[in-house]
Amino acid sequence: MNSKVTRVCILGAGRVAKVHANSLTNYIPNASLVALVDPVEETLAATADQFGVDQRFSSLQECLDHCDFDAVVITTPTFTHQPLGVTAATAGKHIFLEKPMALNLEDCDAITNAARKNGVFLQLGFMRRFDPEFVAAAERIQNGEIGQPMLIKSLTHGPGLPPAWARDLKTSNGNLAEVNSHDWDCVRWLMGSNYERVYVEVANFKGKSRGVETANFYDNALVNIRFENCGLGSISSICPCDYGYDARVEIVGEKGIMQIGELKGQAILVCTNRDQGLISPIYRTWPSRFEWGYIREMKHFVECIQTGTEPKVGASEGKWAVAGVLAATRSFLEERPVYLKEVY
Amino acid sequence: MNSKVTRVCILGAGRVAKVHANSLTNYIPNASLVALVDPVEETLAATADQFGVDQRFSSLQECLDHCDFDAVVITTPTFTHQPLGVTAATAGKHIFLEKPMALNLEDCDAITNAARKNGVFLQLGFMRRFDPEFVAAAERIQNGEIGQPMLIKSLTHGPGLPPAWARDLKTSNGNLAEVNSHDWDCVRWLMGSNYERVYVEVANFKGKSRGVETANFYDNALVNIRFENCGLGSISSICPCDYGYDARVEIVGEKGIMQIGELKGQAILVCTNRDQGLISPIYRTWPSRFEWGYIREMKHFVECIQTGTEPKVGASEGKWAVAGVLAATRSFLEERPVYLKEVY
Amino acid sequence: MNSKVTRVCILGAGRVAKVHANSLTNYIPNASLVALVDPVEETLAATADQFGVDQRFSSLQECLDHCDFDAVVITTPTFTHQPLGVTAATAGKHIFLEKPMALNLEDCDAITNAARKNGVFLQLGFMRRFDPEFVAAAERIQNGEIGQPMLIKSLTHGPGLPPAWARDLKTSNGNLAEVNSHDWDCVRWLMGSNYERVYVEVANFKGKSRGVETANFYDNALVNIRFENCGLGSISSICPCDYGYDARVEIVGEKGIMQIGELKGQAILVCTNRDQGLISPIYRTWPSRFEWGYIREMKHFVECIQTGTEPKVGASEGKWAVAGVLAATRSFLEERPVYLKEVY
Amino acid sequence: MNSKVTRVCILGAGRVAKVHANSLTNYIPNASLVALVDPVEETLAATADQFGVDQRFSSLQECLDHCDFDAVVITTPTFTHQPLGVTAATAGKHIFLEKPMALNLEDCDAITNAARKNGVFLQLGFMRRFDPEFVAAAERIQNGEIGQPMLIKSLTHGPGLPPAWARDLKTSNGNLAEVNSHDWDCVRWLMGSNYERVYVEVANFKGKSRGVETANFYDNALVNIRFENCGLGSISSICPCDYGYDARVEIVGEKGIMQIGELKGQAILVCTNRDQGLISPIYRTWPSRFEWGYIREMKHFVECIQTGTEPKVGASEGKWAVAGVLAATRSFLEERPVYLKEVY
Repeated sequence: MNSKVTRVCILGAGRVAKVHANSLTNYIPNASLVALVDPVEETLAATADQFGVDQRFSSLQECLDHCDFDAVVITTPTFTHQPLGVTAATAGKHIFLEKPMALNLEDCDAITNAARKNGVFLQLGFMRRFDPEFVAAAERIQNGEIGQPMLIKSLTHGPGLPPAWARDLKTSNGNLAEVNSHDWDCVRWLMGSNYERVYVEVANFKGKSRGVETANFYDNALVNIRFENCGLGSISSICPCDYGYDARVEIVGEKGIMQIGELKGQAILVCTNRDQGLISPIYRTWPSRFEWGYIREMKHFVECIQTGTEPKVGASEGKWAVAGVLAATRSFLEERPVYLKEVY
Repeated sequence: MNSKVTRVCILGAGRVAKVHANSLTNYIPNASLVALVDPVEETLAATADQFGVDQRFSSLQECLDHCDFDAVVITTPTFTHQPLGVTAATAGKHIFLEKPMALNLEDCDAITNAARKNGVFLQLGFMRRFDPEFVAAAERIQNGEIGQPMLIKSLTHGPGLPPAWARDLKTSNGNLAEVNSHDWDCVRWLMGSNYERVYVEVANFKGKSRGVETANFYDNALVNIRFENCGLGSISSICPCDYGYDARVEIVGEKGIMQIGELKGQAILVCTNRDQGLISPIYRTWPSRFEWGYIREMKHFVECIQTGTEPKVGASEGKWAVAGVLAATRSFLEERPVYLKEVY
Repeated sequence: MNSKVTRVCILGAGRVAKVHANSLTNYIPNASLVALVDPVEETLAATADQFGVDQRFSSLQECLDHCDFDAVVITTPTFTHQPLGVTAATAGKHIFLEKPMALNLEDCDAITNAARKNGVFLQLGFMRRFDPEFVAAAERIQNGEIGQPMLIKSLTHGPGLPPAWARDLKTSNGNLAEVNSHDWDCVRWLMGSNYERVYVEVANFKGKSRGVETANFYDNALVNIRFENCGLGSISSICPCDYGYDARVEIVGEKGIMQIGELKGQAILVCTNRDQGLISPIYRTWPSRFEWGYIREMKHFVECIQTGTEPKVGASEGKWAVAGVLAATRSFLEERPVYLKEVY
Repeated sequence: MNSKVTRVCILGAGRVAKVHANSLTNYIPNASLVALVDPVEETLAATADQFGVDQRFSSLQECLDHCDFDAVVITTPTFTHQPLGVTAATAGKHIFLEKPMALNLEDCDAITNAARKNGVFLQLGFMRRFDPEFVAAAERIQNGEIGQPMLIKSLTHGPGLPPAWARDLKTSNGNLAEVNSHDWDCVRWLMGSNYERVYVEVANFKGKSRGVETANFYDNALVNIRFENCGLGSISSICPCDYGYDARVEIVGEKGIMQIGELKGQAILVCTNRDQGLISPIYRTWPSRFEWGYIREMKHFVECIQTGTEPKVGASEGKWAVAGVLAATRSFLEERPVYLKEVY
């Protein structure tokens, strides 16, 4: 019955753009996806057709010139986040920004300052903060159910080889940023403390056979974290892992242990061959694992705009995740533990 | 972007009405909940307020006289389904009808005929047919993954004591209808065959301590089914079971076994005391267990109306479930196996 | 350090005989497997060789004539239990008797009386009574953890086609006896009440394709039980089920639900293909499912002999299981509920 | 039927001694526990009484002087392993040695050389190598089921505060040795490669509240390993964790993921309160988690002695685990990654 409708323009028309387009079109009555921007004509047409979006542009500026809307959802490659974010903010558009926030802390600050100066909201795409299981778990931890957290392990293993720009430390910060930004955010959130120092080992098992010859490419990384509150943490990154999409957290507090998430997807168990064993589905992809999280984070963004409330995941969360990645990258390049204060 | 909006009136303002109101209001952009009907003023006001519905009436007729809309969602007690369904159909409104369809087969036919005669759609509220797990399981069975089904067990155990009208065989058909209609539908759907005969044992463990003195009240029932294709089936009914909401199916085919659903709710596991053990959440209620199913069945209803497509769960499914219940009730009253042809 | 050694003779040298031979030889220091009896020379030689048993006989009488020992373990087909049991008892040997106890209640009584008259112990091979999980579950139920049991479901599905004598109601009581004796015992044990009446549906899905033309053969059976305490029960029997060995119990009491056992065998989970899903082992056979139960029941038998204590599972448990089977068989043949008092 | 009996003397009469005494007395027919040695009279008497051992001594030398036997099982504190091992070997006794092998590599070599020189077998107490799940998992990995291992995580969290000597780096190597020796062995075994370098973070959360003021005490440790084959590894150590005994491994190979072990103990699931949720047992202690492993490792030791076969887990495995611990300890003390070649 809400008479206000928030008009949204999505920048980028790729995979995550479709996820957000689906939320806006099919699950959020008080939002309207009014425009789509992508420089690649084919991609733009396909996604716009799928969601019935009439207004299609090859650049944000073109869109700003011809179209009226309230907010942007930025799903383009990381190195474009700073210019697009600043432009959108300057034009007075609220910003939903996919992770990682930016390539470096200066870019994070530029986006943050532009948003603040122009009085627009900035929400980061950390959908785990809206996943019903992660939300319930966080509340239970904060309520003291497992006591003071001592050790947290978070993993994200993704199935397929990332695009070329995301494998190259010159154009991205590699898998630790592109795949594991969520882990960086989650361990900080659930531990309730900032990283103090990190140590990272990386490995490259599949690069050669997949034709990746980029310098410093890694497909496995194992991060060891010391938090400011003396807690310990681990992030593991494997991409491509091929076996499915895998995102789980295990956290031990002074009083007990908690596991969040599991490998199993749908609660269907089948056995047709005792030599093979029992089979249940695994989550194949991140959109299926975090189906609710994606819908809820976008509902939150629209609601914040309509009620004038600050989104609960913003610039600070985005910047800390980038800082963790920068320290981690320096660690494996220099083969030593790196303090956050060296980069932050 | 859909310019068509289907206007819906919900009859009844109780618990399941709120579930459907939530779907229509928060998750279905091309539908609009325009009116609410309930004879109990307080209930009507509370639910209407919660979902921002302005048009409120104490009867369907009053609503028809003063309000313009396309479809009704009937959530009132079973014994009202026949008159309300016939009235709505006669007024040309599409009908979404909660289970059980009606008290007897004559009433089922009356509703069905009225809908057919007036060219309106009739969809039954069997949300398990829209639950992602049940849907995937049914497809896999139909694809032959476990071979020809031989034996199916379905259970629904509900936490709390049903209302007085639902406990009395004179005003309802008891738990086997009010709680287990979904099981009757599911075993027929997944077995791919109609019931041939049923045998039922019932028990009354908690009635006395809860102050229920209704004749023939039972809180436990165990149904044994022979299907026309020689398959065997079991439905177990416990209400109030107190421990949570529990809905699971296990089916064995010539090639293997399949389990659908599990006791566990959220994938959060906690242990804080080795003498107590590991704890994970259980589904507390049916709205939380079938959150997606409720949204998707209503999306389907709206889409059928907008595209002129027959809903995939309708009169036939509703009537068979009622027939099963009638044979089952006769079985435990007469202490013998009862053939469906005796009641159908 | 125990100086007493109980000398045991096993009658029958087949599959379950090997299980007991393994327990006696490898896991019970104060017992000695001194003789093996089987009329089939090849079977006898193979098993005797495997366990290093020197004294080998083709009949119990021959063994009694030439060999000194304290106890027999009877693993031969059911129709031989009465003569072998009576002979062994008359010779003063303690008896460990595999399930089912006998073909009928008269034979049960004959064995029981012979044992009593000759002052020897009689233990029935209900190994689930010694399985750590079933034992712990039974204790917890008896301690009131789930309240008064209301409804119990027990299933045993076995992988392969039973031998010809076990499929024929003339020489055995079919799968309900040969496969499901354990369920009959368990539901009575855990419900804490005797059966009052039973109703059974059976089906024959695989007989034809496996070349079984025996009259009244069934490979699926679903038993509905009313207990004397008004509790309800279900036993499901599928053999051959092909997919593995499956033995589980679910019991709902006034306060809650308990599940005993699960499909999963070893705690190893593997995923190598997201289209296939997660795989964990299933129990392939009953010896692997009840590895501990088989060892512990035999330890109990030896300990009872050495300490002069009555075994905790004996004649009464054996006879009740047979009675249940007899009533069940009459039920499906006569297509009606059958009271235990009609057969007991 | 085995006429050979291996006579065993256990050194130490504490908790793990009882576990081995149980295996030898109750599950291994061809072994005999003939003597027990412990300097603490009360401990000695209690354990000897429990297992019916008549010959009791306060020192190994005394035992050697007065008793005839074939093998020792050394369960005493780590700092005694070198003198006891060398003495036993010199006396021609086969040695089953509990982990950790010794305090340093020199002591490892001394024991190894004494055994070799005197022609006695030396088996290390790495019972996970005999646990049915770990054994099956290792075989499946070696068969290539998950491809070349890339990343392995192993954890052991123990419930209670270790004894004073085991908390002090001067008398032991702390939890990483006393609790996690098994992890050091397992990651090397399952990865199929030696450690190249390690980096460790430690934390002390509970020491103060438990009255531990020992310098460098830690109750949490997180080890990051690079293997010689470029694989990555993690060991997590928490003791006291209070919530139970927890030992699990997760390993990702080029083709897939494998999990070994789970938090859940017995397959019993109970729910009596929907606000509390589902409850299943956790492993409370290491003897219950590795019940089969303890029996099987001791059966293996006895069989090796009787057949003259080298035990499959010996000096090399013991020494590598000690080396890992030494590098790890240096890492957290010096706050840098440490290469194994620095200590080995």
